[in-house]
Amino acid sequence: MGVPDADIHPTATGQAADTVAQHQSPQELVFWSGWFCPFNQRAWITLEERGIPYQYKEVNPYKKEKHFLDINPKGLVPAFEYKGKALYESLILCEFLEDAYPDHKPSLLSSDPFTRAHARIWIDFVTKSIIPAWQRLLMAQGVEKQDAAREELYTAQRKFAEQVKGPYFSGEEFTLVDVAVAPWITREYILAEHRGYKSADVSNEWKKYAETLATRPSVLKTNSDKDKLQPIYDRYLRDEAQSEAAKAIRAGRGLP
Amino acid sequence: MGVPDADIHPTATGQAADTVAQHQSPQELVFWSGWFCPFNQRAWITLEERGIPYQYKEVNPYKKEKHFLDINPKGLVPAFEYKGKALYESLILCEFLEDAYPDHKPSLLSSDPFTRAHARIWIDFVTKSIIPAWQRLLMAQGVEKQDAAREELYTAQRKFAEQVKGPYFSGEEFTLVDVAVAPWITREYILAEHRGYKSADVSNEWKKYAETLATRPSVLKTNSDKDKLQPIYDRYLRDEAQSEAAKAIRAGRGLP
Repeated sequence: MGVPDADIHPTATGQAADTVAQHQSPQELVFWSGWFCPFNQRAWITLEERGIPYQYKEVNPYKKEKHFLDINPKGLVPAFEYKGKALYESLILCEFLEDAYPDHKPSLLSSDPFTRAHARIWIDFVTKSIIPAWQRLLMAQGVEKQDAAREELYTAQRKFAEQVKGPYFSGEEFTLVDVAVAPWITREYILAEHRGYKSADVSNEWKKYAETLATRPSVLKTNSDKDKLQPIYDRYLRDEAQSEAAKAIRAGRGLP
Repeated sequence: MGVPDADIHPTATGQAADTVAQHQSPQELVFWSGWFCPFNQRAWITLEERGIPYQYKEVNPYKKEKHFLDINPKGLVPAFEYKGKALYESLILCEFLEDAYPDHKPSLLSSDPFTRAHARIWIDFVTKSIIPAWQRLLMAQGVEKQDAAREELYTAQRKFAEQVKGPYFSGEEFTLVDVAVAPWITREYILAEHRGYKSADVSNEWKKYAETLATRPSVLKTNSDKDKLQPIYDRYLRDEAQSEAAKAIRAGRGLP
């Protein structure tokens, strides 16, 4: 999502505000965060799932701190500051936590090479198929375009759901595949309220999976209040958003 | 690239044919390959760099073997068959080789978590910025569109080149970042012959880096003869190609 273009609430709210409050003391790892961003939530869920010590710092997208821009010139969130240097890109951050904190259990990526690769294939599917379709439906204007976008999203979600072993993607264990898709599941209510989206119309398997993910504690703990998120999504729903993601979808390109 | 739509030569030629000949005996790992495809070459370079035993099998895109489709229903190449199951997606295959063959030196990904993440950020840049721009220039019709596409490619390559420590991306060691971009470097001559592309116009750093990669033995050993590749690229140059990648670029979407 990157930089939103609505006047956004400056800080996390609801359960996410409590989580922020618990992560104020200095740590080796600083999480530079944008509370509203679904990509950001991937990194946040991973930190919470694995109990990794981190210091939370909210990035004000209109007024980024000099230190943050010094270490991360593009100013992207989510970002990690680790021993004075910055990393970004949500899935790369999640894999970094696997590599840098191997002793923090549970790992969210199997130690079996084949299973790891299989997980990465479906994480890639979320990024290339589910998210762009989700974003197109969000921004689609007019019934005809919305119907087409919704069908495209349903098709991608159905395909994904066929692979879900249950209750989580890989079975009993919550993994990075679940992390990758969870932020767009916890925001499904926006599509339901404005775009005729129905979880049950995807498939029973998807509906059940979505309910499981939406009530996962790490997801709930990183959710802010809906009324604070709404003004940001209103601009997408009216196709007025000017974020990099919005421009890319409008131009028909892949997500940046 | 996936399925090409020109009549293509059925097998690897040139130096790649010698490499194929050396990898005919059955192995735990089967490399289902399309000799012409740059994504495919990433997996092949990695196998060669690390001396991993593999059996090479060419996939005829017009007549795929039943067994191949049984284990890999989408029929995508490159694919690995490992203990009877299939994996695909070029970069995931490269990372799989790191995970599954840790004792085969050299590793192409640092063991340092920060350095690994940094490498993955720039691999992601290759995939999201360099390759789509490369493909757009290849398919661009008319001077104006070609000029714009060429400038877009130069900008992305310059940005990448600024990060190259030399002689390879990360310094003295050849890594997965080099693997990720090498197939599009060894094919630069197509853009030079048909699209006014000049390596030296990117930057001196890029030119030097490109020359280093283009002469790397693992790259040379996986290159087929130019005259066999030309008919495939001719269809892209005339914007007549109907592969999934061609359709995606034409529709302005990200690469599939």
